[in-house]
Amino acid sequence: MQTMDFKFIFLLFSLSFSISSSAISHANFMPRFPSSNIVRPEQLSLSTTNELYRTKYFTQILDHFNYNPPSYKTFQQRYLINDTFWGGAGKNSPIFVYTGNEGDIEWFTQNTGFMFDTAPHFKALLVFIEHRFYGKSIPFGGDKDIAYSNATTLGYLSSTQALADYAPLIIDLKKNISATDSPVVVFGGSYGGMLAAWFRLKYPHVAIGALASSAPILNFENITSPYSFNSIITQDFRSKSENCYKVIKGSWQHIEDTANKPGGLEVLRKSFKICKNYISVSSLESWLHTAYVYTAMTDYPTPSNFLNPLPAYPVKQMCKAIDDEVGANDTLAKLYGAANIYYNSSGSATCFDLEDDSDPHGLGEWTWQACTEMIMPTSGNNKESIFPASEWDYNGRASFCKNLFDIEPRPNWITTEFGGHDIERLLKRFASNIIFFNGLRDPWSGGGVLKNISNTIISIVAEEGAHHVDLRFSSREDPKWLQDVRRREMEIIGKWISQYYHDLAHS
Amino acid sequence: MQTMDFKFIFLLFSLSFSISSSAISHANFMPRFPSSNIVRPEQLSLSTTNELYRTKYFTQILDHFNYNPPSYKTFQQRYLINDTFWGGAGKNSPIFVYTGNEGDIEWFTQNTGFMFDTAPHFKALLVFIEHRFYGKSIPFGGDKDIAYSNATTLGYLSSTQALADYAPLIIDLKKNISATDSPVVVFGGSYGGMLAAWFRLKYPHVAIGALASSAPILNFENITSPYSFNSIITQDFRSKSENCYKVIKGSWQHIEDTANKPGGLEVLRKSFKICKNYISVSSLESWLHTAYVYTAMTDYPTPSNFLNPLPAYPVKQMCKAIDDEVGANDTLAKLYGAANIYYNSSGSATCFDLEDDSDPHGLGEWTWQACTEMIMPTSGNNKESIFPASEWDYNGRASFCKNLFDIEPRPNWITTEFGGHDIERLLKRFASNIIFFNGLRDPWSGGGVLKNISNTIISIVAEEGAHHVDLRFSSREDPKWLQDVRRREMEIIGKWISQYYHDLAHS
Repeated sequence: MQTMDFKFIFLLFSLSFSISSSAISHANFMPRFPSSNIVRPEQLSLSTTNELYRTKYFTQILDHFNYNPPSYKTFQQRYLINDTFWGGAGKNSPIFVYTGNEGDIEWFTQNTGFMFDTAPHFKALLVFIEHRFYGKSIPFGGDKDIAYSNATTLGYLSSTQALADYAPLIIDLKKNISATDSPVVVFGGSYGGMLAAWFRLKYPHVAIGALASSAPILNFENITSPYSFNSIITQDFRSKSENCYKVIKGSWQHIEDTANKPGGLEVLRKSFKICKNYISVSSLESWLHTAYVYTAMTDYPTPSNFLNPLPAYPVKQMCKAIDDEVGANDTLAKLYGAANIYYNSSGSATCFDLEDDSDPHGLGEWTWQACTEMIMPTSGNNKESIFPASEWDYNGRASFCKNLFDIEPRPNWITTEFGGHDIERLLKRFASNIIFFNGLRDPWSGGGVLKNISNTIISIVAEEGAHHVDLRFSSREDPKWLQDVRRREMEIIGKWISQYYHDLAHS
Repeated sequence: MQTMDFKFIFLLFSLSFSISSSAISHANFMPRFPSSNIVRPEQLSLSTTNELYRTKYFTQILDHFNYNPPSYKTFQQRYLINDTFWGGAGKNSPIFVYTGNEGDIEWFTQNTGFMFDTAPHFKALLVFIEHRFYGKSIPFGGDKDIAYSNATTLGYLSSTQALADYAPLIIDLKKNISATDSPVVVFGGSYGGMLAAWFRLKYPHVAIGALASSAPILNFENITSPYSFNSIITQDFRSKSENCYKVIKGSWQHIEDTANKPGGLEVLRKSFKICKNYISVSSLESWLHTAYVYTAMTDYPTPSNFLNPLPAYPVKQMCKAIDDEVGANDTLAKLYGAANIYYNSSGSATCFDLEDDSDPHGLGEWTWQACTEMIMPTSGNNKESIFPASEWDYNGRASFCKNLFDIEPRPNWITTEFGGHDIERLLKRFASNIIFFNGLRDPWSGGGVLKNISNTIISIVAEEGAHHVDLRFSSREDPKWLQDVRRREMEIIGKWISQYYHDLAHS
């Protein structure tokens, strides 16, 4: 049975508040950062006997910034390494490091083909570091029951601690392989892209440059409109067809009207082939909402496999299902057809479980991060939105977090620690060697850096691009714009490395 | 009675280990960063009714980097403010911030005349922020007994936490006085200079530039020779007179030989006018050692008042006492004469207490910092040294710290977090707007940045300069080189501010 794996956070929100109206449930949607690339090892020039990576562990300090005795606790941090293409320490060949984000690092590694695709050209060593508290990098002896139990243990899960993990791991690794002078370039997509950019800003002595793909580092405080995220989704669908937009926009009321009719819930249950013998309107709406959001986010030009397989240009496919002449007046059937693109592109699912909150990639602790520092206003909807109109609800988030963890968010911390306001002016004459890639179909692109900041802090924008599409494995079907984006990224990274070698030779 | 206030750390070291030989005691000397400027309010264009500053407090978060419940503890952080010269928020007039170091902020404020001297020209608001755990900025309800009690509470005393304190305080202050667009320049001397430079590197969105005076940011790991500190002191004395150097160099053996003779301790006690009726050789040697170190550090061209008043060019004065023809063969009398320059320039002291460990400026918690991250190898002595030959003794430090706090130092943390290795190469194309001032008579200058890193990361070196002499109040007797240094610093800071206004106008 195919199910909608990825909506646990939304469900979590919904369930916590027993949301009564769709406006509130839409306002509480806390979008995730999915990585939606599919690994295609057959494309690699790896011999079949080689593994994609070897797994290693580094003894990491739990608390980098305090020196009270608990700070001396350590944990085992996982990282994956591939030296198939490496030119070696003797040649100071480069090291490409993925700054792992909020999930199992194997998943990110298998889905960051760009690093494997470019490693042979650069003779790069590949390293993928897992983010603390995810995957197998669990403090407190690897015991998730302890690590995730409450704010006292989860407290060590923060972006600054994660960044501070990468530094000693990289420095130590370089020392161990006698590659102290090898240049390090960091890569990351989504939250991992934010970490890559911030790592270059905070640890320029460790990384000579960063490719930050689809990194919404400006999606904090009032820098980016809280409507931006959903406005982009709206535009993604509307640009395909005005009818598609109108049907989805009107569907929320239509679903509620249906539910309020006698026998209406049973109609909904049957229309959407729900496995269980009951249905809640808010769960159904979340389920549909999730499908639109993640389909927009991963509107890739080639077939992909995020959690479920998706066809090329899935937004177009969804709109095609809605615009279908067959059953022109049956709105629920159209919506079901659209949902099927996201949840059931293989056609093998016979029924759906709206409350499935499985988390196969171990992304659950994002809720903690979204309750502490990752306060990214994204859930507002203006009148034009494909979702019901609503305001970004900070108080809702705060009381959710109070409820769940007994803590208060720090909504200003990220801009205090990393900046964001007036970034173009303030980084214009500071820092260098960062690429910010954004695809404008990606709802997160509204919070991205969309203009060049300087000659060396470059923004690459792809009008037709979705969430970190550049980091996917290349394929023969890739459109020219995507090939161009990747070529340009390689050229820029190549320039960083050449310049580094030049400086090294002359120092 | 005049006493040698400033040797508490050395004493602490000595007493902890019941050091038996002078070689060990010299190796364990852990030099402090004294600020040795005297405030001269009469030089200010402040009306007598104005105070030098007003005292304010900011509610600061104890733990910026973790979100476990204790992190929500706050404390009252003191800062001092002077708006006498400020051009106002309407004109986006600049804000000069002193990044407070390891002591009472009033002391640093009263001794950072450069900021007061230049404020009228720049129409700058002056802000002096006290470093957490010093002065009146004591966490745990201001209770030093708790805050200083053990590693659990002292754990929050770290440079990264201190830097993270400055950011929200400055951002909040600017918001409160509606000066969000006013440029901030940070200033600091010694450890405060390290913090100023690091603050510019880590928080470029908060400060447009930094004047880091006598900031030995390279005095970590093996970047700087562990002999450098004492070699510079040696050279300071030797450059005045070869005889002076030889007498001091030979004195350690001479003192021990004397002590080993029958009645020798009493001879020493009388020669150095010790108040108490006993003397220990190691205390005497520390006392003399301290005098040479701090006199070299504060070898200013004009009379100064660090803890005790000093004449202009005190190293020269010490050597004059040693080279004095009167009593040519009485080495102890010569050493006493030299010590008198540092401990008794007024001539009013009638006897000395070698074990006095008073700490009027509240610098004591430096010991904690020197036991955690501030592992600055400075106590090695080569054969040429004016002090007995010895190796930098990391293990000695570590066991001292284990003894005192039951913790282990993290000798690699500072370079991991802030860099240092290959700084010229790695910051050449990253960052901007930092002045590193160093006076080559300052023993700390060996760990300073002595070459320009780029067009905007500038090194200013004064051959005749001592420890952050540039930050002192100006005086009519200042030599031309010192006037030139300050003029150049003002020009560079002026350029940063102009450029900022240009960027602001065009953004």
